[in-house]
Amino acid sequence: MVMAELTMSPFDKGEHLSEWVAGIIDIIDKSGLPYQLNPMGTVIEGEWDEILALITKCFKRMSQDSKRISINIKIDYKEGNDSRIEKKVDRIEEILNKSVKR
Amino acid sequence: MVMAELTMSPFDKGEHLSEWVAGIIDIIDKSGLPYQLNPMGTVIEGEWDEILALITKCFKRMSQDSKRISINIKIDYKEGNDSRIEKKVDRIEEILNKSVKR
Amino acid sequence: MVMAELTMSPFDKGEHLSEWVAGIIDIIDKSGLPYQLNPMGTVIEGEWDEILALITKCFKRMSQDSKRISINIKIDYKEGNDSRIEKKVDRIEEILNKSVKR
Amino acid sequence: MVMAELTMSPFDKGEHLSEWVAGIIDIIDKSGLPYQLNPMGTVIEGEWDEILALITKCFKRMSQDSKRISINIKIDYKEGNDSRIEKKVDRIEEILNKSVKR
Repeated sequence: MVMAELTMSPFDKGEHLSEWVAGIIDIIDKSGLPYQLNPMGTVIEGEWDEILALITKCFKRMSQDSKRISINIKIDYKEGNDSRIEKKVDRIEEILNKSVKR
Repeated sequence: MVMAELTMSPFDKGEHLSEWVAGIIDIIDKSGLPYQLNPMGTVIEGEWDEILALITKCFKRMSQDSKRISINIKIDYKEGNDSRIEKKVDRIEEILNKSVKR
Repeated sequence: MVMAELTMSPFDKGEHLSEWVAGIIDIIDKSGLPYQLNPMGTVIEGEWDEILALITKCFKRMSQDSKRISINIKIDYKEGNDSRIEKKVDRIEEILNKSVKR
Repeated sequence: MVMAELTMSPFDKGEHLSEWVAGIIDIIDKSGLPYQLNPMGTVIEGEWDEILALITKCFKRMSQDSKRISINIKIDYKEGNDSRIEKKVDRIEEILNKSVKR
């Protein structure tokens, strides 16, 4: 199972990026894959091929509007079928024996 | 104001990393800076020098235990004093006119 | 055209990673796509689908040996068919009017 | 010893970035630290504090001209004083028993 954090930004739209990013988040939200949006990117969980197909869909959409795009994909692969998108932070809280901000 | 997402992992502790990562999160939690933990990293907000001092503290701690460490720092700098750690995701929801998972 | 920098490392092989990484470089070298190896990753140039197919091949190979893998993919997309893998550094030298280390 | 790959780009200067990036490369070139420029970033080698001081200098310079900046820093720390900026690629060639493109 793969956890991937995706950041995708156009370079030719000036400093206000939210409107361009929102279209991508909508595609991820409709994909049905577990995801979690944070201020710096979107964490998505799934099998390798599902994740890459979804990122490709996001890229095709953004490249309709933008001539230069910067993308960062950070992947954490762990063998097996366990979902970790909630458990990773739970585990940190368990070890520290306190709740953290999420 | 700077938003930074930090990921710091030892390479010499095998595949179970939570115990090593928890010590770093504790340092960030005690720093007093606004932060938000997600399954792939920790987003922290502050001035450039505050952020770098905090990351340095995390590094000094992890390098006491580990001989090889991988670190990723992704920074989004925007001129001015506005906090964006909550507002960025709010703005996406406003544009999409629906709530997203966070 | 896409320029992508790939870093792929196993987390369960201890601190010496070169032997695990070399297998991936061999796959990239045999792909026929323009590439350039640096101490922190490999820059590859091609169309979106070619790049993703090659990264998938690298992942399938490393996941045969490793149960936990960390991957970073940084992509710079620019519309059109121009190769930039050599030109980007040339252009910096031209602007600075001196040669830089590469 | 730390190896760090730095990418720093303004978001408010349109799609042509070389002129803005060149100023940063000049600062790195004059720093005296071993470095290597590739099409996606600059790899620099030094002690933790030297590296962070240099990145701070680059940031101060770019933030004079730009109101929104994206920065990626990827760090590989290994205990000890060995320089690895040349050796890492040498070692891959040794294992594969052939030369690779660099």
